[in-house]
Amino acid sequence: MNSVDADIADYRYAIFSGGVGGAKLALGFYLEQSSEELLVIGNVGDDFNHWGLHISPDLDTLMYTLAGVADPDRGWGRAQESWTVLDTLSDLGGIDWFRLGDRDLAVHLERSVQMGEGETLSTVTRHLCRAFGVTATLVPPTNDEVRTMVGTADRTLSFQEYFVRERCEPLVTGLLYQGASQATLLPEIGRSLAGDRLEAVILSPSNPYLSLDPILEIDDLRRRLAASPAPVVAVSPLIQSQAFKGPTAKIMMELGFAVSTLTVAQHYADILDGIVIDSADRELSGAIADLGIKVWITDTNMGNEQDKRRLAAEVISFSETIAG
Amino acid sequence: MNSVDADIADYRYAIFSGGVGGAKLALGFYLEQSSEELLVIGNVGDDFNHWGLHISPDLDTLMYTLAGVADPDRGWGRAQESWTVLDTLSDLGGIDWFRLGDRDLAVHLERSVQMGEGETLSTVTRHLCRAFGVTATLVPPTNDEVRTMVGTADRTLSFQEYFVRERCEPLVTGLLYQGASQATLLPEIGRSLAGDRLEAVILSPSNPYLSLDPILEIDDLRRRLAASPAPVVAVSPLIQSQAFKGPTAKIMMELGFAVSTLTVAQHYADILDGIVIDSADRELSGAIADLGIKVWITDTNMGNEQDKRRLAAEVISFSETIAG
Repeated sequence: MNSVDADIADYRYAIFSGGVGGAKLALGFYLEQSSEELLVIGNVGDDFNHWGLHISPDLDTLMYTLAGVADPDRGWGRAQESWTVLDTLSDLGGIDWFRLGDRDLAVHLERSVQMGEGETLSTVTRHLCRAFGVTATLVPPTNDEVRTMVGTADRTLSFQEYFVRERCEPLVTGLLYQGASQATLLPEIGRSLAGDRLEAVILSPSNPYLSLDPILEIDDLRRRLAASPAPVVAVSPLIQSQAFKGPTAKIMMELGFAVSTLTVAQHYADILDGIVIDSADRELSGAIADLGIKVWITDTNMGNEQDKRRLAAEVISFSETIAG
Repeated sequence: MNSVDADIADYRYAIFSGGVGGAKLALGFYLEQSSEELLVIGNVGDDFNHWGLHISPDLDTLMYTLAGVADPDRGWGRAQESWTVLDTLSDLGGIDWFRLGDRDLAVHLERSVQMGEGETLSTVTRHLCRAFGVTATLVPPTNDEVRTMVGTADRTLSFQEYFVRERCEPLVTGLLYQGASQATLLPEIGRSLAGDRLEAVILSPSNPYLSLDPILEIDDLRRRLAASPAPVVAVSPLIQSQAFKGPTAKIMMELGFAVSTLTVAQHYADILDGIVIDSADRELSGAIADLGIKVWITDTNMGNEQDKRRLAAEVISFSETIAG
């Protein structure tokens, strides 16, 4: 048994997460639990090549958040950031719609250098996490390329074109997770899900369509989650039709879904054992229970560190209840 | 006749140059003459790939110098520079022996993006010069890859490994200009040299072995220079065995050459019509004249802007004398 296998045997919690909202819960687990026992799987559907560099926005948001160097106000990028390179490149007429700070840029450069030398994204992510002192295991779901493509009335945009360049303004007509079905799930995720050490699988309060589906569509991950001995628990990203962060509500409406935690529960019905919903949505608990999904009602806001830890602790208690 | 040809018809002076020392004289010409009539050919033997980016140190030193944004004290890079990306990347365990400042890095990123889109180095250099407001034409001698390799007792180093990483410390046993003989000279340089509009070709006071030979070995440039109707004039980089800047003297010694302006004259004897030497070396003028090379004796220091302009003016007067 090599050291990677030894690691896997020790994971107690696996969290599937997108960027900001999901990262808050991941931080709650990181602070509340023994971080070495935490496996965080970050969305790579938003990854893209910019300025010739491999950029992994969600993995970086998770890494920066766990390392305590994320910018607390902007919701992306690093704290105490400067913008010298971007401003200079902008003056030269370069492409400047994606705002890369100097400290953030260093990470993309280092990632791209290591990947250029033939390292996989998962290995580079481990190297970077080690450099940032992150003691949880943060991985991409696959080392293959998965790209979220956003269909709009006019044309298909890459996620970052839609999200950043077009500021989520175009009407979304459909989503495509390019490469997902052909991608190979990172073996340690599959082994961890199939093993009996894992106490819970958590779907973080990230956008189901933009952040979690690009992961869940990989390989036969949905089937693996449905078959996992550990309970699968989601935390809803919605409170009474309001998404915590980002364009979740807008996209749900445009795709014809009711903007409701019930829709989220239905979306995951085949894999969920339980869902944590906000007290404001308690009237949905009956309808969700009818789907065969257990419900935990609490305050799902994660405004401060204490909220994050409390919610993580509640998710753990809830999953223990489900596991019986 | 397209616009590029129209430009070529107007060049009065063509300066072949390496970095710092050569850039001083190029600036003298730029300020003293109509800059649109100036063709500056910068060494690319020092170019290399670093952090996945295409870096052209001599072209950039020339561009920054002509644009007035070069750092006056360091002798390389940009004024008012910051080092956030480098410091951050260094903290991550990245490769940090080549000191790239934030503002400088933006140029390498933009160059690499444009080259990644299929643009040639000469086109990208024009784009960058335009963005920096440089009105002279700065070009690489070729769009093919030429790399100066430094043979040392132990092993062969790329130029930047020798120059920056190893601080010129290893004993130099030989130099190789990889790719030079197979490279194609930029057509506008060849046309300009063969035309009758050019009033002088200037070999700037750069290191003959490290900065000018990597240019002169390209294609059949030496023969073209020897055949050029315009007089070819060098400015010696040496004053009484002292090189202005960099490792010229050390390398000359290690390669077994006498560290003297006479050696420089001998090195270029097949192509030179004249050479500008320092007053301190006036006793060499007879020996140089014996090589069939005319001599102009003056103060070759270029400490300030006035010195640079004066020396440029003297080089012009001298070349007019030669042209008769």
